[in-house]
Amino acid sequence: MSEVTIKNDEVDIVIGAIQSDLTSFMEAWRPFFSNFHLIVVKDPELKEELKIPGGFNLHVYTKSDIDRVVGSSAGSISFSGYACRYFGYLVSRKKYIISVDDDCVPAKNSSGELIDPVSQHIINLSTPATPFFFNTLYDPYCEGADFVRGYPFSLRTGVECGLSCGLWLNLADFDAPTQALKPTLKNTRYVDAVLTVPARSMLPVSGINIAFNAELVGPALTPAFRLAKEGNLRWETVEDIWTGMCVKVICDHLRLGVKSGIPYVWRQERGNAIESLKKEWEGVKLMEDVVPFFQSLRLSETSVTAEDCVVEIAAAVKERLGSVNPKFVSAAATMVEWMKLWKRVRGQ
Amino acid sequence: MSEVTIKNDEVDIVIGAIQSDLTSFMEAWRPFFSNFHLIVVKDPELKEELKIPGGFNLHVYTKSDIDRVVGSSAGSISFSGYACRYFGYLVSRKKYIISVDDDCVPAKNSSGELIDPVSQHIINLSTPATPFFFNTLYDPYCEGADFVRGYPFSLRTGVECGLSCGLWLNLADFDAPTQALKPTLKNTRYVDAVLTVPARSMLPVSGINIAFNAELVGPALTPAFRLAKEGNLRWETVEDIWTGMCVKVICDHLRLGVKSGIPYVWRQERGNAIESLKKEWEGVKLMEDVVPFFQSLRLSETSVTAEDCVVEIAAAVKERLGSVNPKFVSAAATMVEWMKLWKRVRGQ
Repeated sequence: MSEVTIKNDEVDIVIGAIQSDLTSFMEAWRPFFSNFHLIVVKDPELKEELKIPGGFNLHVYTKSDIDRVVGSSAGSISFSGYACRYFGYLVSRKKYIISVDDDCVPAKNSSGELIDPVSQHIINLSTPATPFFFNTLYDPYCEGADFVRGYPFSLRTGVECGLSCGLWLNLADFDAPTQALKPTLKNTRYVDAVLTVPARSMLPVSGINIAFNAELVGPALTPAFRLAKEGNLRWETVEDIWTGMCVKVICDHLRLGVKSGIPYVWRQERGNAIESLKKEWEGVKLMEDVVPFFQSLRLSETSVTAEDCVVEIAAAVKERLGSVNPKFVSAAATMVEWMKLWKRVRGQ
Repeated sequence: MSEVTIKNDEVDIVIGAIQSDLTSFMEAWRPFFSNFHLIVVKDPELKEELKIPGGFNLHVYTKSDIDRVVGSSAGSISFSGYACRYFGYLVSRKKYIISVDDDCVPAKNSSGELIDPVSQHIINLSTPATPFFFNTLYDPYCEGADFVRGYPFSLRTGVECGLSCGLWLNLADFDAPTQALKPTLKNTRYVDAVLTVPARSMLPVSGINIAFNAELVGPALTPAFRLAKEGNLRWETVEDIWTGMCVKVICDHLRLGVKSGIPYVWRQERGNAIESLKKEWEGVKLMEDVVPFFQSLRLSETSVTAEDCVVEIAAAVKERLGSVNPKFVSAAATMVEWMKLWKRVRGQ
């Protein structure tokens, strides 16, 4: 593929508000958010009124919108906590979606300059991905780079990018055990690169700072995998890890790319890792079954869209993981419900 | 695996001398080479005497050594040009080998500090590799990093690293067409990371700046793939690309890792890309067959050492690529010959 142009009005920035006062968050992002349409979804569990400064082109969705749009068809789908953003994905009408956690602000690069994560995500989605051969100088389409010697010319056109996974400075996205064991561990290393994660290689996608092509992979971003004691701290969740594996398997199957690397966001402290430890172990344990499942999953030739793929993955989850843990049975059921909801609301 | 300790006397630094005056090269590397044993192999085509400054612990091998050690058994194996370093791999008695092209000097990091490529290669080889799941914060064993949320605990011990592929600042390792099309293109982006290239993902290994565990993968580094009009410029060769694919397939099969990233070296200009274009196209064209071959190659369970794997790969090359181009038939023959030579000389 050749590079595509993404216009600002093709992009929705979706913010799941799990804290009520978004003033400092919005002000920090103002330079980069002001030219885009924003969708703010208020966590339905959140009681307080949202505080959002003026001057943005935004639409706020609350519990009553969720009830109205989803209604009784919600079934096992929950939009509480981090999952509230998925309602934004559902009601967006845009081709591209960018989503950032509300405890993150724009980071600075190693020269101390403020980074524009929105632009970088758009670059990642608009330039081709190269999942079928690794380029040792990382993204060959970025300024000053190219394909290295030995890279087959037939693979240099690349494929479309489905998902762009950004990273984090300061508080990294470690799990609760790691964070509890190393309470002073902060990520200070700014790695100035983005790369395509090779085909058939799985990665733990973090939902903290991502962007995706909703037409290509949107249906795969489902709030399907909810832990029993899930709270409002990232290290208490694995919903985005699950979603990321679905997207990666689908991208591999449909010959699309997943990129990881820049842009970074600056992630602020929230919560106490030691207190979260009890909750997290469920997620940690489940990964031991989740990862081999997705690594060995091969979709059938008859699945030609992300929707087909999600339905096929749900069936495989139920069949192969259902007996391991009831969590997987409900994840599969939620994915099927989500597919119906997605088709009805997004009209796809 | 846990981290291993590598002692200086377990390492050989192998330099293939394709230019006669190594004075500035050796002086630039003096701070990092002085504590190691060096093997310098003089390109047998080189007529002039080598100029090497004093104060190093080194052994120089020349054409007469090659004739003495290899003798009439050389057959189709050629040690001329870049291939002369392979003689150094053969006669080394050390577990670890580091090799750098003689037109490279130590680079500086983004803070302007001189980088020690030798130490970084040793770190890469002594810390585990993680080929079975991608860590979004790159090398989890490097200072200040760890495994991110969602990374299965069962995969966090990692596996041994077989090969460490370093990179290049200034003149990057582009092919002649790319370099001829973009004569001013230089690599200035210092990406402060090293990562494990995921299992089953192929990469174009550059021989410019590498290190490897000779006990684990040494036999796979063979001067097997020689182009008809190969010259003494990197962009006229694909020998290292071929070798790299053999090593990667073997590492995937034996559950070992290949790392790519830091250390960088500063690569100086040599040659004229436009004049090399005629020679290079053969290599470029052959990649279109080479890459799919290695991507689809699966070795049998009975191949349990690198030696077994090389013999099996050679047979597959002959069988599946032999009819495509006679170059592949001779590459396969050279690999088999190399295996015999390796066993005889290295006693393995």
